[in-house]
Amino acid sequence: MTDSPSAPARPAPVTVIGLGPMGLALAEALLRHGHPTTVWNRTPEKADTLVAKGARRAGTAAEAISASPATILCLKDYATMYAVLDSAADALQGRALLNLNSGTPNEARAALDWATERHIAYLDGAIMVPPPLVGHPGSVFLYSGAQQVFDEHRATLTSMGDPRYLGPDPSLAVLYNTALLDLMYATMNGFLHATALVGSADVPAATFAGIALDWFMPAVVTATLTEQAPALDQGDHPGDAGTMEMNLHALDHITRTCVEQGVHSDQPRLMKAIVEQAIAQGHSGKNYLAVHEVFKRPTQPTQPPQPTPPTQPRLPG
Amino acid sequence: MTDSPSAPARPAPVTVIGLGPMGLALAEALLRHGHPTTVWNRTPEKADTLVAKGARRAGTAAEAISASPATILCLKDYATMYAVLDSAADALQGRALLNLNSGTPNEARAALDWATERHIAYLDGAIMVPPPLVGHPGSVFLYSGAQQVFDEHRATLTSMGDPRYLGPDPSLAVLYNTALLDLMYATMNGFLHATALVGSADVPAATFAGIALDWFMPAVVTATLTEQAPALDQGDHPGDAGTMEMNLHALDHITRTCVEQGVHSDQPRLMKAIVEQAIAQGHSGKNYLAVHEVFKRPTQPTQPPQPTPPTQPRLPG
Repeated sequence: MTDSPSAPARPAPVTVIGLGPMGLALAEALLRHGHPTTVWNRTPEKADTLVAKGARRAGTAAEAISASPATILCLKDYATMYAVLDSAADALQGRALLNLNSGTPNEARAALDWATERHIAYLDGAIMVPPPLVGHPGSVFLYSGAQQVFDEHRATLTSMGDPRYLGPDPSLAVLYNTALLDLMYATMNGFLHATALVGSADVPAATFAGIALDWFMPAVVTATLTEQAPALDQGDHPGDAGTMEMNLHALDHITRTCVEQGVHSDQPRLMKAIVEQAIAQGHSGKNYLAVHEVFKRPTQPTQPPQPTPPTQPRLPG
Repeated sequence: MTDSPSAPARPAPVTVIGLGPMGLALAEALLRHGHPTTVWNRTPEKADTLVAKGARRAGTAAEAISASPATILCLKDYATMYAVLDSAADALQGRALLNLNSGTPNEARAALDWATERHIAYLDGAIMVPPPLVGHPGSVFLYSGAQQVFDEHRATLTSMGDPRYLGPDPSLAVLYNTALLDLMYATMNGFLHATALVGSADVPAATFAGIALDWFMPAVVTATLTEQAPALDQGDHPGDAGTMEMNLHALDHITRTCVEQGVHSDQPRLMKAIVEQAIAQGHSGKNYLAVHEVFKRPTQPTQPPQPTPPTQPRLPG
């Protein structure tokens, strides 16, 4: 008896290596979606709950890899990956390695080279949700590397969340991941700092959050992220509706208010310094988006302190 | 002939002093909504377009103030306000002053004292939209001061936008305004920096904005601003789902990736330093919201550099 071509494919076998909180969540999601799931972890007891749910525990990493066309890797970092796979690279030959470690773009590119030399199909990925949300259809997973590998294993990837393919450069997934976290932390910090500022007048954070959400969402997030992004790509930042100097004035005002209210002022002070850098780099009169031009280049080393000119004691008369 | 109590009230007369781009937009919105509008500006020609639309140009600030039960002030700052009103305070006696200058909380409190001494009803306000959006029903205006003044002039305030009353402390409007701008700049900077980071791999800002908006909006803005605000008020930040040390690791990773990709790294470096401050202040093991506790206190002066201990040259053998 053969499946008709239109029948839904049976969930493919899959291997999960690395059973920390995230690896456990991945394996559980795959089991829930009916994938025959083989697991391996350096400390074998970590697999106990998975085995109770139907997972197969392999004795070695190589044995685990041999059980499935694709192995999902969820380890601490790339160094751990090489340590684990060193003795199992032969088993991976001709199979797919879907690597969800976090790391830097250079580490992702090096991993692709390592895999390619060993005839291993390689996809680098990043998980954008915490473990409890793994397996939900709206949970975003980012992938980069060969599109063929992504397409071939899309059904398996979909069992873990909403897989997004970013392009063939294997570093894109970790780079997007890092940039999104950067954006998240900056917004978190903006919110935490703004609530501390209104908190200096005993305004509850929950009260401020209400009004911040009404006004902030349409005016800032939508306007900035959606409408202004094309202007960033064009690099054209006319200051007709507001200049860099006006923003410097506003950030100076914010900084002085923080000092007056007795709250932390490093964050607005740095934003002000960045606008000063923009003006020093020739973006006087441009709109605020020209700050992007500052961010595109490495931080300049701080000027060494100027030697103080020797002062003569001033004699009266 | 008298109006029946249920007939809609005729728009009240109103005076606008200060006709920069924002003052012009306010007067135009009031004229559009049918208010008999009297205007005054130090340079009288600024009123020409308003007079063509039906405004009455007063010869002096005192004459303008005498024409209406309420005067809306839209000047550069509080110092300008005192200079303009110095000779017109008698005219204001028994009338309302609705002040939309920007300034610090202390300046707003001092202005209320100044007005109260002169028997002037005072309301401090802040405009949360640029001039072209003034007069639209969704445009948020923040007000603080005596609720009676707000209620009495609510119809006039509604002709300029969506008036929100924040409380009797007159500094609340400028404080909320400053905090919302602080949040806006932090988020803008987060977005501009994140796009610079993905831009280092030639990812267009518009492409990144798409995915950032899909994931960022529900996971960060809604989750942070709405759901976590009550926890900030309670000051309880258990680290069950992620500790301050894990965030330090993430921010260190972001900083190193920025350096590796050759983009500006001051912003993630400061966020990392703030987490280090949180740990040093006893928030080790707490979740990220404990950064709020750091922000609630003034920036600590930097430690003076420790004197380097004298080193003895090390002799071989």
